[in-house]
Amino acid sequence: MWSPEPVDQPLPIVLLDHGGSGHKRGNRQLDLARWFATEAGAASVAIDGPYHGDRALEPTADYQRRMAEPGIEKVTDGMVADWLATLEAVTGLDGVEGDRVAYLGLSMGTRFGLPFVAAAGSRLRCAVLGKFGMQQPAGMPAEIDMRPRFAADAPRITVPVLFHVQWDDELFPRTGQLALFDLLGSPGKQLIGFSGMHAETSPMAVEAWREFVRRHLGD
Amino acid sequence: MWSPEPVDQPLPIVLLDHGGSGHKRGNRQLDLARWFATEAGAASVAIDGPYHGDRALEPTADYQRRMAEPGIEKVTDGMVADWLATLEAVTGLDGVEGDRVAYLGLSMGTRFGLPFVAAAGSRLRCAVLGKFGMQQPAGMPAEIDMRPRFAADAPRITVPVLFHVQWDDELFPRTGQLALFDLLGSPGKQLIGFSGMHAETSPMAVEAWREFVRRHLGD
Repeated sequence: MWSPEPVDQPLPIVLLDHGGSGHKRGNRQLDLARWFATEAGAASVAIDGPYHGDRALEPTADYQRRMAEPGIEKVTDGMVADWLATLEAVTGLDGVEGDRVAYLGLSMGTRFGLPFVAAAGSRLRCAVLGKFGMQQPAGMPAEIDMRPRFAADAPRITVPVLFHVQWDDELFPRTGQLALFDLLGSPGKQLIGFSGMHAETSPMAVEAWREFVRRHLGD
Repeated sequence: MWSPEPVDQPLPIVLLDHGGSGHKRGNRQLDLARWFATEAGAASVAIDGPYHGDRALEPTADYQRRMAEPGIEKVTDGMVADWLATLEAVTGLDGVEGDRVAYLGLSMGTRFGLPFVAAAGSRLRCAVLGKFGMQQPAGMPAEIDMRPRFAADAPRITVPVLFHVQWDDELFPRTGQLALFDLLGSPGKQLIGFSGMHAETSPMAVEAWREFVRRHLGD
């Protein structure tokens, strides 16, 4: 957890999830946490995904195969429970404002984040999701297919969502990403698309995520 | 033309085009021009589209039929020439900085704006386009089909473009709008999509247009 300099009023908080092969202290999380602390007066918190970071007993390169073993429903339920526990823990802290919470997670951070956002309901103010879709990437094990879960969970989401698409995503076909955006139940959903492949995140995209969160965490 | 309070340094300028049935002094133009003057230190200029505003001899409701008479190529060439003349005129003014110019026009402002942005080339810093596409809306006369022109002009555009899509656009089918975005030659193109029908422009969309222009007009 990262916090701004102590202030008198309670802090909003951003839940930061990392992508596949990343971990909770990755550069993206550090950069975002620093920005939210200094520019938005918000705390941030990150946790490791399944088989990642401090929870990886073996090299994370193998994580898809490892998720397939228990089955993706079980892994997803576990990660949703972890995020709900994290939400419970951080909003119970002195100095944190429990009703000003945002979620930000792309790619694997959407694999698990989308079901979490659905489960958290109105405990969140907004979410930034994307880089995932309703088409299986080539080579991804069938056992970790998220489509049934997304089909059930996406329509349940009603908080504002900023959904990010890399227009030339070589892993998650664009049409599947647009289909996932379509499924979201949020009246205030918004799509942003940028040229480039899966991992080519433009600084303007990061700026759009940050501003979206800052706006929704405002008083 | 709208200008900020006089300052010492030359002003950037935003070319504002209106949508179908609108005119150069519409509320959208006034609101944007006021914001650019007060928040971005930029001047703005608007002109009437063909058969609109002071150039409408008959009610503008008939404008599509009127454009069909001379043929859309001729009308488009005329409007592109008008914008090029406007660009030439305003960038020749004392106090205007000729190499910090942006274009902003949606819907009919993209019908004519996209060919203008292609023609203006590097004389523009960036453009905000959208709410138009590569599928003919139901009921639009075949004589005013923009597809051949767009297919030729969109790939020629290389300046950064923010392309706006209303996700539930009842006039311009979404897939045609996405196809038009695909055709744009700009390495720095970016798509934003918002729930809602053609005319339901979210305040967050307007904010995205403004910030995109402000960023690209920066020193």
